[in-house]
Amino acid sequence: MGAGAVGLFGARSARAAQAAAPGAGAGAGIGPGPYAVEGMAAYSATQPLRLLKFERRALGPKDVAIQLHYCGICHSDIHHGREHWRQEPFPLVPGHELAGVVVAVGSSASRFKVGDRVGVGCMVNSCRHCSMCNVGLEQYCENGATFTYGSKDRDGTLTQGGYSTLNVVDEDFVIRVPDAIDLADAGPLMCAGITVYSPLRRWSVGPGKRVGVVGLGGLGHMAVKIAKAMGAEVTVLTTSPDKVADALRFGARDVIVNPDSADLSRHKRSLDFILDTAPYKHKLDRLFTLLKQDATFCMVGAGKVSEPYEIGPFSLLAARNSYASSQIGGIRETQELVDFCALHGIRPETSRIAMNEISAAWDRVVDKKARYRYVVDMKA
Amino acid sequence: MGAGAVGLFGARSARAAQAAAPGAGAGAGIGPGPYAVEGMAAYSATQPLRLLKFERRALGPKDVAIQLHYCGICHSDIHHGREHWRQEPFPLVPGHELAGVVVAVGSSASRFKVGDRVGVGCMVNSCRHCSMCNVGLEQYCENGATFTYGSKDRDGTLTQGGYSTLNVVDEDFVIRVPDAIDLADAGPLMCAGITVYSPLRRWSVGPGKRVGVVGLGGLGHMAVKIAKAMGAEVTVLTTSPDKVADALRFGARDVIVNPDSADLSRHKRSLDFILDTAPYKHKLDRLFTLLKQDATFCMVGAGKVSEPYEIGPFSLLAARNSYASSQIGGIRETQELVDFCALHGIRPETSRIAMNEISAAWDRVVDKKARYRYVVDMKA
Repeated sequence: MGAGAVGLFGARSARAAQAAAPGAGAGAGIGPGPYAVEGMAAYSATQPLRLLKFERRALGPKDVAIQLHYCGICHSDIHHGREHWRQEPFPLVPGHELAGVVVAVGSSASRFKVGDRVGVGCMVNSCRHCSMCNVGLEQYCENGATFTYGSKDRDGTLTQGGYSTLNVVDEDFVIRVPDAIDLADAGPLMCAGITVYSPLRRWSVGPGKRVGVVGLGGLGHMAVKIAKAMGAEVTVLTTSPDKVADALRFGARDVIVNPDSADLSRHKRSLDFILDTAPYKHKLDRLFTLLKQDATFCMVGAGKVSEPYEIGPFSLLAARNSYASSQIGGIRETQELVDFCALHGIRPETSRIAMNEISAAWDRVVDKKARYRYVVDMKA
Repeated sequence: MGAGAVGLFGARSARAAQAAAPGAGAGAGIGPGPYAVEGMAAYSATQPLRLLKFERRALGPKDVAIQLHYCGICHSDIHHGREHWRQEPFPLVPGHELAGVVVAVGSSASRFKVGDRVGVGCMVNSCRHCSMCNVGLEQYCENGATFTYGSKDRDGTLTQGGYSTLNVVDEDFVIRVPDAIDLADAGPLMCAGITVYSPLRRWSVGPGKRVGVVGLGGLGHMAVKIAKAMGAEVTVLTTSPDKVADALRFGARDVIVNPDSADLSRHKRSLDFILDTAPYKHKLDRLFTLLKQDATFCMVGAGKVSEPYEIGPFSLLAARNSYASSQIGGIRETQELVDFCALHGIRPETSRIAMNEISAAWDRVVDKKARYRYVVDMKA
């Protein structure tokens, strides 16, 4: 897909591309910007997304411009768009599972060249000098990572996300997509994939370990595949009876349907680790009974801030368990996850949709109808 | 104190002792029982404690009979007595911080002899063969530890606790009190001491570590002394401004008063571990901001079951923290804690009261007036 196709909406796309890169050829990349871009934005917490035309900054020395081909839809996009977490700076273009092709490279950027297949996840910058950044934990940057949308960028502008035609990103926050991974499958690795991979690594999931995965959605289905590839035995806990066959197909050895009411006694103290990917508040105390002595339950599916999780005074005490949480992963670790997926042939289960279908897709995600990740196709 | 003084209430005591040990001399111990005992029992969740006369079983081969001199008052006694945790089998004699002297020894008991100074904590038995018992974690016995009161004992009777004149306990669940520790100080080590020592060890508190202790009560003040002796720097968080001087005297380096409203920014991400000893639900999210990256917050102060703790979806995620809980400690570890206190000259701060003052003491504990552990003196 050449520079001439930057943009989404037919004639408007072409105009946008021309504005962005007058005279640039496909092989040589496009000009240094600034770039006229089109995206789908939330304008309030209640309205459907609508078109937003905006500008991406001109290439800085270490920036690359990425023509976006695909962007995954994460439940976090919905939490942001519907203001479940905070007041948002509308209009806001969500999307933090970006996949595309490099179309321009800054003067001192050295890691990528025009034509490279790349992805971008939840972060586009961090302070680079704190103790967290120094060890590759940019997501925990002590001075605050710059998130892909809704953050204040270095130049004071608001970052806008991947439901758009092009982005300009510091190359240090760009992930290389190996040839073995279809670009349409790359986006969901950048958030869903790394968000589950990082805690599975942190809590030493591997051969001989028994892992529970709560929620079989965008994150959960990746967690099953990744934990299985790591050598673990996976038990899925889902509220959707019609996902059982899929869970087994993804590699689960066991499935517990409706864990709120199911008889869990057979599974008591059987799991070395539980990863909870459900994006809304739900009951936790029963689930803790599945943990072995001293084992950890890690929540990665952040719910509404107005609905804190509840933990009974004895539910962790009974076997000295821990309830933890984890946030995406660092840049190096994200590259590691992408390479791991390439090596093990792991891909997300996706449904491609067009830009104007995003709002409908959000509704289906909330209704647990996604199977398992919607990916916006900028060309559709 | 010889066998003739077994019991508490003057003439009644003498009668009880005679019933328990007809003709037994002080040096030779008393007879094999069964033993007539007097205790202070809760008869309902709302009434003051009242005298209960009951019988302890005859010595089994591995049992020892312990004439109780002292028993600490733990907030858990109040939670049980007031049915904050479950329906209780009234009449119930609370007390799981027992200290006394061995007055009779079963035929094959070998670890103790008459006259030995001993303590008993929260457990008096466990299954002895599960994976937890096998590694000295009897408190997490997979078949259910037998707790010192309110549990079904091996013989089907209800266990009754340490607010009483004598107990019969399997010697494997009896702790030796070193000479360096006054018997009046030994009781609070058996629950308060081990409950804080075990997680401090589990989460590797030691030199160079900065530890927060939430709540400066029976458990909290022991946590400060023990963590200090382990080499850590201790920060106390308390709702009682008048405890600041004590906190520093016990070894704290810093005190934060009213953590719910205090400016915590100075302490942000400063602590390697937090031990929360407050026995009722309180706000946690602000406290998590004090934890360093990947650090653990351990709750040992179990509140009412009707009031689960609340954790916001981002409060642990921000620095990949864990919220854990821990329950007393195993028998070997309890002996280790007692020996540690002897070695380091650590003693609880106690106020001695008589048996008939227990109900009043409970009220003062709830009102945060205890400084810092009430100890029932069976002779008073």
